[in-house]
Amino acid sequence: MSELVRVAVDAMGGDNAPGEIIKGAIEAVCESKEVCVILTGRQEAMDAELAKYTYDKERVETVDCPEVIETAEPPVAAIRTKKHSSMVAGMNLVRHGEADAFVSAGSSGAILVGGQSIVGRIKGVHRAPLAPLFPTEKGISLLVDSGANVDPRPNHLVQFAQMGSIYMEYVIGVKNPTVAILNIGAEEEKGNALVKETFPLLKECRDINFIGSIEARDIPYGAADVIVTDAFSGNIVLKLYEGLAAVLISEIKKGMTSTFRSKIGAALALPALKETLKSFDATEYGGAPLLGCQGLVVKTHGSAKAVEVKNSVIQCLTFTQQHISDRIREHICTD
Amino acid sequence: MSELVRVAVDAMGGDNAPGEIIKGAIEAVCESKEVCVILTGRQEAMDAELAKYTYDKERVETVDCPEVIETAEPPVAAIRTKKHSSMVAGMNLVRHGEADAFVSAGSSGAILVGGQSIVGRIKGVHRAPLAPLFPTEKGISLLVDSGANVDPRPNHLVQFAQMGSIYMEYVIGVKNPTVAILNIGAEEEKGNALVKETFPLLKECRDINFIGSIEARDIPYGAADVIVTDAFSGNIVLKLYEGLAAVLISEIKKGMTSTFRSKIGAALALPALKETLKSFDATEYGGAPLLGCQGLVVKTHGSAKAVEVKNSVIQCLTFTQQHISDRIREHICTD
Repeated sequence: MSELVRVAVDAMGGDNAPGEIIKGAIEAVCESKEVCVILTGRQEAMDAELAKYTYDKERVETVDCPEVIETAEPPVAAIRTKKHSSMVAGMNLVRHGEADAFVSAGSSGAILVGGQSIVGRIKGVHRAPLAPLFPTEKGISLLVDSGANVDPRPNHLVQFAQMGSIYMEYVIGVKNPTVAILNIGAEEEKGNALVKETFPLLKECRDINFIGSIEARDIPYGAADVIVTDAFSGNIVLKLYEGLAAVLISEIKKGMTSTFRSKIGAALALPALKETLKSFDATEYGGAPLLGCQGLVVKTHGSAKAVEVKNSVIQCLTFTQQHISDRIREHICTD
Repeated sequence: MSELVRVAVDAMGGDNAPGEIIKGAIEAVCESKEVCVILTGRQEAMDAELAKYTYDKERVETVDCPEVIETAEPPVAAIRTKKHSSMVAGMNLVRHGEADAFVSAGSSGAILVGGQSIVGRIKGVHRAPLAPLFPTEKGISLLVDSGANVDPRPNHLVQFAQMGSIYMEYVIGVKNPTVAILNIGAEEEKGNALVKETFPLLKECRDINFIGSIEARDIPYGAADVIVTDAFSGNIVLKLYEGLAAVLISEIKKGMTSTFRSKIGAALALPALKETLKSFDATEYGGAPLLGCQGLVVKTHGSAKAVEVKNSVIQCLTFTQQHISDRIREHICTD
């Protein structure tokens, strides 16, 4: 039997903590015999939730952490001062090799700060980007970076492309994934200063399947597997995706119930329609890894329910078993 | 009777030229007695189209232009060398005071270059941004800039905010329009270097109703009337809006016809639904003005049909009658 993959889970992070978080962690343990979880959080709260389930107790540990980092707290100060928080404790487990990965639905800012400062970057990695998967007409694409590094330099984007490719290929299973840079036109001379400087570097980069520029319009069609961009632009894409899908879906529901005739139609069509809409309803598919850290840090949606938490834990399994950090260490350009 | 507003129209620009362009121009002349149009293009082609309609011949002129600027041509070279193109001729009419405005569905790049170099900016205006209107849950918002100025400076964005406010108030009729800067979080310390430097300048700026940062997620809800950003980010918003709406609508149609039951439902609900979807289907509502030029330049969607061309011409009427250029001249900060 292969060695267990140890995933620390922030039991106190997110809108539905600790209930849904612990439920998801337990579901992951039940789904895969190769994973064990280490829950970090307030002992009493964790015990109360755990008492609800039947599971293999050998593969679920808890670490008592009296503090919690709240979403509104300034991230740097929170990470520095709340040493006994569920988040800092979980990250320290990864740092000290006592866990392979850490999953949290808590404050994004704190996860980004803690990932880089506590877990630390792989030697040679300039910046650790947040890389969420999101739905497209064809399936899913990876957006690197979507919130960690505003105003990056061109060589940072080259590493984002390399790390994103490795993730898509070995964790998601897309052979030779296509990589594009987010731009405002398809021609090589288009773009802002960052894109113009980065484009030729990506063209020269071996190890990636660079297909050139992608316009935002083509993202929802799934025109590239990995989309490289600065965090400011990436965040715009991700948030607009979320907002526009939600507004369109609500407008469509309104439109479908605007007349008596359409109301009957809606009643008949809605079950099938819901399936379609669901796939475009969430911004983040499972969790978004912070790529390039020594050990894995995964940020799950703040509103994550058990199923997303479970998926994020299972994602850590593939990530660890596929030795993604080693592959990144071997393959990134460090100039 | 008030003086006629003279709108030059590029009869050869866009996917549906000259047929839909000329049809739209004629419709505008028929709709408003206050407008006259000056069509620029190949005489023979224009005459053939004009022969199809009955209209007040006193208010439709033509200018024969043997050349056409194609979409794929490098903009700067095209504007410089094709002096006898429908686009350059139309812009020269505005430059020399023979027309108040110019409308084109042709190459965006050439319109941006020609607008700034032929028509020219108002004294004190640093950059002329492209400001399209787009649909939201509440109505419409204005996005400044969406394609003209990548890598702008903070004081450029302040002018964008001022010019956008004037446009929204006097052309669209939104009293004291709210202005927000596109950002990746609501807090003042968030953002890239450009946003961080621009934010305090906008806060200090009188004449605008600045409400702070807006996240991309809130744009579709209509959270601000005027959204200020650099052209790279603005282009991402605009293009993603277009692409995501199209993909979602196509997915929804697929979803609604996936089962027998849902097919019947779809047949009943679709007429009402189509109305809703239509309002989110086009990126640009009418035309996008290039703000801050001496005289008005309006870029219409490349795929514009007659109704969009007509709306763009009518938009020029309000713009001119409301003396938008004069208001901009009086109100912009020039430091």
